[in-house]
Amino acid sequence: MRLFGRYYRSIWVDEQDAETVCVIDQRHLPYQLVVETLRTAQDAAAAIRDMHVRGAGLIGATAAYGVYLAVCRTRTDPGEAANSAGRMLAATRPTAVNLTWAADRVLAAVRAAGNPADARQAAFLEAGRIAEEDAASCQAIGRFGADILAGISRMADRPINILTHCNAGSLAFVDYGTATAPIYEAHRRGIRLHVYVDETRPLNQGSKLTAFELGQNGVPHTIVTDNAGGHLMQHGLVDAVLVGSDRTTRTGDVANKIGTYLKALAAHAHHVPFYVALPTSSIDWQLADGVREIPIETRSEHEVLSITGQTADGRLETVRLAPQDSKAANYGFDVTPARLVTALITEKGVCEASETGLRPFRPDRAR
Amino acid sequence: MRLFGRYYRSIWVDEQDAETVCVIDQRHLPYQLVVETLRTAQDAAAAIRDMHVRGAGLIGATAAYGVYLAVCRTRTDPGEAANSAGRMLAATRPTAVNLTWAADRVLAAVRAAGNPADARQAAFLEAGRIAEEDAASCQAIGRFGADILAGISRMADRPINILTHCNAGSLAFVDYGTATAPIYEAHRRGIRLHVYVDETRPLNQGSKLTAFELGQNGVPHTIVTDNAGGHLMQHGLVDAVLVGSDRTTRTGDVANKIGTYLKALAAHAHHVPFYVALPTSSIDWQLADGVREIPIETRSEHEVLSITGQTADGRLETVRLAPQDSKAANYGFDVTPARLVTALITEKGVCEASETGLRPFRPDRAR
Repeated sequence: MRLFGRYYRSIWVDEQDAETVCVIDQRHLPYQLVVETLRTAQDAAAAIRDMHVRGAGLIGATAAYGVYLAVCRTRTDPGEAANSAGRMLAATRPTAVNLTWAADRVLAAVRAAGNPADARQAAFLEAGRIAEEDAASCQAIGRFGADILAGISRMADRPINILTHCNAGSLAFVDYGTATAPIYEAHRRGIRLHVYVDETRPLNQGSKLTAFELGQNGVPHTIVTDNAGGHLMQHGLVDAVLVGSDRTTRTGDVANKIGTYLKALAAHAHHVPFYVALPTSSIDWQLADGVREIPIETRSEHEVLSITGQTADGRLETVRLAPQDSKAANYGFDVTPARLVTALITEKGVCEASETGLRPFRPDRAR
Repeated sequence: MRLFGRYYRSIWVDEQDAETVCVIDQRHLPYQLVVETLRTAQDAAAAIRDMHVRGAGLIGATAAYGVYLAVCRTRTDPGEAANSAGRMLAATRPTAVNLTWAADRVLAAVRAAGNPADARQAAFLEAGRIAEEDAASCQAIGRFGADILAGISRMADRPINILTHCNAGSLAFVDYGTATAPIYEAHRRGIRLHVYVDETRPLNQGSKLTAFELGQNGVPHTIVTDNAGGHLMQHGLVDAVLVGSDRTTRTGDVANKIGTYLKALAAHAHHVPFYVALPTSSIDWQLADGVREIPIETRSEHEVLSITGQTADGRLETVRLAPQDSKAANYGFDVTPARLVTALITEKGVCEASETGLRPFRPDRAR
């Protein structure tokens, strides 16, 4: 992605020092681009836990590099260091399945190595592969999704309007994002488009991150409140809804940021296609009924009762939006049933949101 | 309504000085109760224009008292003073129909009076009647609506959950409110209930005003983001949605705060009853198709791009939530088609949201 005129990924190895990993501290976006250097597994764990980095793809890659850093720093057994770092990293965000998955991959590479120098090299390569695969997978989603947008564009004699919710963007993965990848690829192909960006309360990843990365990459966009989507669709102002997914069942039910479901209902009511972009690694092949089976994380009420933004003189400030004695409920996600999803866009291709549609993408072990 | 242990209306005549009118400056809520004194029609106009007061019923009453204050202060012709004050007041919020209606009523009373002293008295009484009628109308809505909630409560062996959006509360009218009136009356009758309050971006009238007045009046409530309603209904956590209306067509289409429509779609999908509470004065008997015919006010993008709240040290501060170069669209209202409305609750009774349902409530002149 381009940020302030330079090409960035959301995580990279320092050019001067292969034992230092760099990430963008996203808590400062969109106001300031702060690059944070990670020197130890503890640094990586803090960055994940305190949400300097967030998003499934990016925290997976950060965990992988965290294990690599542990191997770099240890003076004793690399396997032991990788194992204990992996456990520490996995505990930072207990619901993020790919944290463990990424840490385990690097651990296995370390264990397969013959000596400490080989172990360090193996960890470096495996973490790099995880990051590279993430970016490549998003890029493939972008190509499949852009074909869909091209089809919609051909039928419209004007720029097409896409509505997105939250940030399933470059900043949530290593690059390109999932929901944003088709947008970037379509924009690159010269397809005229405009994106309505839901601000996405409570944490405003839409107005703070998605609007930022779209703007930095020259994609026309307009921020709207989460309340606006129904009105927009009722008045023909949305040609497609395009969102990401945190977890998808084998039947095509989609758990994504709270509020996604309301947009899916509105899209259904107005015959607006509703697309979900996701890497197949986020499909939970065990689950058949998303509404009943996917646990919904409830987060701190303070995220709802107050908000952080930038003051006129450039300080980050948190302000309270509610009476001192009022409580809030803060559900992090909701589930959109497969029947409301027009299609799933994965790195392996586009399919119907159903068990039949997803079957070709099942990994061998699950067949 | 009770606020900090005392009984208040949102507007009243000063007990010590009948030529001073008091309102609550709602810009300071929920943080501080600031009572503002209006001494002139200009004071009243500024209070309406700068949104110290808001809500259909309250700005109507404020305009009526504004005309009264003009008559108090004039040294020349009371009719002339009332007329020019009325025009000034009507221009403060051009889309609020009842501003003109209220000012005209006081003007007519002034013109019918014989001399300046009688004119002053006539204006005082007419403004008082407008305020009183507003409160009485809301109270009647409360009784009809509470009967509905009582019915829902009888079928549930637990406190019932009501979802509301924005502030159609005591603070938007002279007292009781419209959407809140059935809640207050049901609470008074001992019906066990709990209210989910949508925060209602961009201006957060839900978290700032509705949560405040519910809390002050002892009504159990929980603030949620506007994104949460679909999830809540999907999990059976809402027994009824209850909202107000800014304008209702003769066919029962309802214009209300942006985001109302998304909740109506979700309620429909989950067979949750969706009630709209409104005074019949807000029915526009000219209109038949709300989606096509009700003009939707677009407001400043700054309301979306930033937000005002209270800092930890008690100051009101406005913070920006978006990149400097991103734009926003800010639609103030949306339209919920009658087919999604279970019933309308008016001061004259409950009816189906349809031309047939509303016909008995048509004023004589329109029959």
